[in-house]
Amino acid sequence: MNYETCMKTALQLARRGAAWTAPNPMVGAVIVKNDRVIAEGWHRRCGDLHAEHEALNNCRESCRGATLYVTLEPCCHEGRQPPCTDAILQSGIREVVIGCPDPNPQVSGNGIRILREHGITVRTGVLEQECLAPNQAFFHWIRTGLPFIALKYAMTLDGKTEAASGNSKWITGEKTRAYVHRLRHEYTGILAGIGTVLKDDLMLNCRLPETRDPVRIVCDTNLSMPLNCSLVRSATRCPLIIATCVTDKNRLAAYERAGCRILTCRRKHGHADLRDLMCRLGKMEISSILVEGGSFAASLLEEHLVNRVVACIAPWLFGGELSKSPIGGSGVFNPAEGIVLRNTKMMQMGTDYVIEGDI
Amino acid sequence: MNYETCMKTALQLARRGAAWTAPNPMVGAVIVKNDRVIAEGWHRRCGDLHAEHEALNNCRESCRGATLYVTLEPCCHEGRQPPCTDAILQSGIREVVIGCPDPNPQVSGNGIRILREHGITVRTGVLEQECLAPNQAFFHWIRTGLPFIALKYAMTLDGKTEAASGNSKWITGEKTRAYVHRLRHEYTGILAGIGTVLKDDLMLNCRLPETRDPVRIVCDTNLSMPLNCSLVRSATRCPLIIATCVTDKNRLAAYERAGCRILTCRRKHGHADLRDLMCRLGKMEISSILVEGGSFAASLLEEHLVNRVVACIAPWLFGGELSKSPIGGSGVFNPAEGIVLRNTKMMQMGTDYVIEGDI
Repeated sequence: MNYETCMKTALQLARRGAAWTAPNPMVGAVIVKNDRVIAEGWHRRCGDLHAEHEALNNCRESCRGATLYVTLEPCCHEGRQPPCTDAILQSGIREVVIGCPDPNPQVSGNGIRILREHGITVRTGVLEQECLAPNQAFFHWIRTGLPFIALKYAMTLDGKTEAASGNSKWITGEKTRAYVHRLRHEYTGILAGIGTVLKDDLMLNCRLPETRDPVRIVCDTNLSMPLNCSLVRSATRCPLIIATCVTDKNRLAAYERAGCRILTCRRKHGHADLRDLMCRLGKMEISSILVEGGSFAASLLEEHLVNRVVACIAPWLFGGELSKSPIGGSGVFNPAEGIVLRNTKMMQMGTDYVIEGDI
Repeated sequence: MNYETCMKTALQLARRGAAWTAPNPMVGAVIVKNDRVIAEGWHRRCGDLHAEHEALNNCRESCRGATLYVTLEPCCHEGRQPPCTDAILQSGIREVVIGCPDPNPQVSGNGIRILREHGITVRTGVLEQECLAPNQAFFHWIRTGLPFIALKYAMTLDGKTEAASGNSKWITGEKTRAYVHRLRHEYTGILAGIGTVLKDDLMLNCRLPETRDPVRIVCDTNLSMPLNCSLVRSATRCPLIIATCVTDKNRLAAYERAGCRILTCRRKHGHADLRDLMCRLGKMEISSILVEGGSFAASLLEEHLVNRVVACIAPWLFGGELSKSPIGGSGVFNPAEGIVLRNTKMMQMGTDYVIEGDI
């Protein structure tokens, strides 16, 4: 078995933890001895054992002289779990093959250094790009302290998110909506503006089986969300954060009694300061957020807070000079100032198309 | 060789005539005898021999007892060419296999009937959908008298055709622009509004080698096109039709002297009546038109004149509440009134995506 084959197996294992490991990264590990896989492991959920530890525990024979494949550099610091480097050194593993380095400043090369200092052969960068991909959100959050933000919107093929009446319901089809619910499962948080909430009385949960609900966040500068809306009424069952500039304790108390968590934000140009909000959410270990379109998409982009765009395009034409497009605001003045999307990919979903790209 | 294999060969031959046969359809023919192709032919260009005739002429041996495969029902009327049914009857062909019927009211089943009345075995509907596809524009034009209209526009992934300054140049990349020039070659005419012409001093020609230029049509209700613009200055080399509501002979004369052809249209709601214009263009044997975005896209859609949409999507975001989207006008009031696109397909072109669909 060659390095890449084993790393691919480790990667597949890593992905099993998708959505459940946050704010930790997804990690997979494989132990190979005499050209035979003798153990596998992956990080299942934040708080559970790390992948390397899992694999070592799953060994049915001695791993003395074996090779450990792990998608991410093993940790060397005491966190929610003891350092993996210790466990590796104790195990008798002779070689460690690593997919990508851990950007966590507490690890960042130290894991590799410690292993090497103890005489273990370490090979790095095997399928590095593939190993980086599933943890893009984690890497962004650990580097910047800000959540990785995906801006999702649904529009017609002529770029409209609403018909002239303002009605925007059911633009995209069933498969696309299921995909969006899958994203809600994978992102730690979901954010919507008060305008969207008021219009459609949203729940912002994930309606697929065997998934988790994201932490729901509503940006409500002036605290105008009705106490009897679906979001507030479900706050005791499913976390709801209200980001607001209102500081009046009496007004806030009613929401807190309903089970909402209040985040008081700085005000900027009359609205909640989005960068301040994101810093606070990042500190709360909300490492990734799916933003459901809305009027603050432009502000998020202007503040350079958006990392990915998910454009769901339905095969319809609405037309309308005054009908809304996904991103409002003042827009760029010249084409050259436009925001370029990298690594785009397109998926057909039923009769819709979804185009995703990184900023 | 089975029916479908031979028809596929005939179809490939048919497509060689793309762009050159208009307003005639593309047709391909294959003659098979003793399980061997003994001749091929296709309609090369309007005015040239029909495919069946070409194939019969290309026979290097007697086609007595042979089978003729032809993508479209053979004609039975005297047009630019003598009827193909006569030639088939004289040739000794025993069986004719037809892809799809000819919707031309002068043919429409009569070709098949005549062959059968003379004892020829006729099989119809072999790869019918595949045979209909390349001649979609022809079928529409022959049935309705109106050109088949494709509305093409370039927009960003957030549905903007211009930045806030009004600048729209080079939204899409090189490959997409080459594809649009390929479309210009394939459509008989190209139509732009005076606004687009004034802004960018367009040429509206096809800049690829071994292609033809479309007939250029500008909708210029009030005749405001400058006599020294690129379009007018090239009118003697490459046909230019100006559709206008102006009837003042002196004003028109200057354009006519420059080589332009004037089409005087009825006025409707202050603009050239687009349905009237299309009827006239259809009568001039302009069977298909590529419309280059612009402000009258909405009017064309409202008049139910658009048959296909070609949306070129660039991986950019412009934003801007007031920045233009591809289709203006008042738009539909409710989502359910939106125009649905059928048979959509998506193509990646460099970093752009092109989504096409039929209305």
